[in-house]
Amino acid sequence: VPVVRVSNLTMSLDGYVAGPQQSLEHPLGIGAEHLHDWAFATNAFRQAHDMDGGDTGLDDGFAARGAHGVGAEIMGRNKFGPVRGPWPDDGWRGWWGDEPPFHTPVFVLTHYPREPIEMAGGTTFFFVTEGIEAALEQARDAAGEFDVAIGGGAMTVREYLEADLVDQMHLAVVPQLLGRGTRLFEGIDVSGRFDFEPVQASSAVAHFVMRRR
Amino acid sequence: VPVVRVSNLTMSLDGYVAGPQQSLEHPLGIGAEHLHDWAFATNAFRQAHDMDGGDTGLDDGFAARGAHGVGAEIMGRNKFGPVRGPWPDDGWRGWWGDEPPFHTPVFVLTHYPREPIEMAGGTTFFFVTEGIEAALEQARDAAGEFDVAIGGGAMTVREYLEADLVDQMHLAVVPQLLGRGTRLFEGIDVSGRFDFEPVQASSAVAHFVMRRR
Repeated sequence: VPVVRVSNLTMSLDGYVAGPQQSLEHPLGIGAEHLHDWAFATNAFRQAHDMDGGDTGLDDGFAARGAHGVGAEIMGRNKFGPVRGPWPDDGWRGWWGDEPPFHTPVFVLTHYPREPIEMAGGTTFFFVTEGIEAALEQARDAAGEFDVAIGGGAMTVREYLEADLVDQMHLAVVPQLLGRGTRLFEGIDVSGRFDFEPVQASSAVAHFVMRRR
Repeated sequence: VPVVRVSNLTMSLDGYVAGPQQSLEHPLGIGAEHLHDWAFATNAFRQAHDMDGGDTGLDDGFAARGAHGVGAEIMGRNKFGPVRGPWPDDGWRGWWGDEPPFHTPVFVLTHYPREPIEMAGGTTFFFVTEGIEAALEQARDAAGEFDVAIGGGAMTVREYLEADLVDQMHLAVVPQLLGRGTRLFEGIDVSGRFDFEPVQASSAVAHFVMRRR
């Protein structure tokens, strides 16, 4: 049965999933440049970005499973890019170059309509203005027998958690202190909703996996 | 060289070190009853509380090191007990019975003076009204060649962190969501101050150890 899941969402020990002042120069906000180093070091990530090598241990397994079996992704507009407000033109086509690493339909939550963008390698960006439930319905249709990934950012994951629409979530906690930024767990209370798998960790990151009860 | 350290401070995945509404009935606040289960399961904890058995693996090592080599402890008044405001009488002598597990001088931060209480087994509670630096000075004198432990709760640890008086901190992150309560990392930014040891984890808890740069 396909599920709705969050994978490889990385959080600092003090609870931040992004730093402050996200921008073109600082896609993850200031001070968060090394938040995802554990993922960049994996073979799965490097392969997805046409590079060789990388670690093949525990962290690689998590990185690989994050993408495996996903038939569609949903992301917030702030993950798609630094542009805010109405789309000024069709210039911004995501952070990921001509061939983004998704290879599936990607549904971008926005208040401003925009025509779909078909990229190389199977990724098409669709822009959804009708809210998170409509986006999920479209993503489920597109994914068919595969899972729907909630790709982030924090606000988007929080909204789906609040609406109790997330079946599984994998959080990666890294030994870093950001001090400021965007928290995942801010103003939401999802206690009692999830069971946890046994904790696993490499020297670089602790993996927490929860499933909806 | 003796250090000032925080050990075995346990935090839920969503960042809480205690639940809301701490009281005589709920010393750790509502919903936090299982936060420290990983520690209760260790041989070190059980031995310290005159019980046999318990796990002897990774978590036990952390639990044991938390107490080992400590010559004095500092705690906030909220950790000492549920009494607030002026001490009504000498009735409250801590949560820990006649022979508390500290076996050292313990300095309790309070705004209200009180005579020291000598307990069985080497624990004496001293009440310090002159603030965190005075308490640390007294604790250092008492500890001599041994370390000073900052025992909690959250507000006390936060104050010592803010004042940059913590040399080492061990945080234990457990796969639980509390949803509400007291955060350790709230209103403080200690980014850039600590280096981390490699992450270690059992199935029950991920251990993060940081040392002042």
